This record gives sequence, structure tokens and C-alpha cells, in this order.
Amino acid sequence: MGTVIVDVMPKREILDPQGQAVAGALARLGATEFTQVRQGKRFTLEVEGEVTPQTLAAARQAAVTLLSNPVIEDVVSVRAQQDVEQVRAQQGDQA
Amino acid sequence: MGTVIVDVMPKREILDPQGQAVAGALARLGATEFTQVRQGKRFTLEVEGEVTPQTLAAARQAAVTLLSNPVIEDVVSVRAQQDVEQVRAQQGDQA
Repeated sequence: MGTVIVDVMPKREILDPQGQAVAGALARLGATEFTQVRQGKRFTLEVEGEVTPQTLAAARQAAVTLLSNPVIEDVVSVRAQQDVEQVRAQQGDQA
Repeated sequence: MGTVIVDVMPKREILDPQGQAVAGALARLGATEFTQVRQGKRFTLEVEGEVTPQTLAAARQAAVTLLSNPVIEDVVSVRAQQDVEQVRAQQGDQA
């Protein structure tokens, strides 16, 4: 079973009240080092079998037509989960 | 200016009606290869200067206390954006 990860964020010029609320809450909790917070969406799309270039193309198409609103949001990335995990292993990251 | 990226997803055992709605819409649009969709959240936290280990520790703390609900959500990753971009460059990925 393969998984494609799609990341969508509000465009830089668009107000993000959710992100602003989080930034305010962080400051109240004492995490004053964060100057700006923005909140977007992350989707996982599962397929049977491996993630192929065709799967990624279909996921990109879904990302721009259904998973994001191109007027206010950017599709930041569309990638296979196995690539993301390979990279984490390389970085020796535990998070 | 540095940026930390925090990814949060609903736990595997938790129903995700938003993801199910997206999966249904994808099937209706003809993208029948995707068997399951789950929708989570992606946050970008900006700091002045570089992302340090202290920044990442503060971001991890924020992720588990404020950015996610540990009863129903998992913090999938907390990482510096520069690491993510370095990896994309290595993979020669345009998405």
C-alpha cells in the first residue's frame, strides 16, 4: 500500500485568522519566539500497490482541483510518503 | 528568518469525516485509484534568525500542547523548513 502526501497552505497575501489565533495563544503560553503562524492542510491519499508517476500526476490534479482553492491557497507539495520517510531516516530525525 | 513546519494528522483509529468526504468527491471526479483519504493540519511557525535546537524543542512542546489534541491527533513531524527544502533539491522534485 502506498501513500501520497499533499500539503496545502494559505497564500502569503491572504489573511489567516486561524494562524493568528494560534500565534496569540503561543505568546500567552510563553512561546514568544514565534513571530508568525500560518495554518494549512495536509492530506494523505492511499493507493493499493506502489505510488507510480501516474498516481502522483492524479494526486497533483486532485490537489489543484479539489484539495485546494487556487484563489486563496497554494499546493506546497505532492509527494510519495516513502520519499519523505527515506529522508527522515537519512537525517536521523526522531520527530 | 527561519520557519518550523509542524504536521498533525487524525489518529488512525479516529473517524475522519472530512477525509471521507474528499475521498467520495475524488471517486465522483474519476480519481478511483485512491482508496482512503485523511485530512490533517500543517502549521508554519516563523522565528527571527535561524531555527536552533531550542526553537525546535519549543515547537515540539507547542505541537503537543496547543497545535494538536493528543486524544484524537498525532504530531507527525516537527522540522525546520530548510531541511525539507534541502531534501526536495536533492530529489530534483518540482512539486
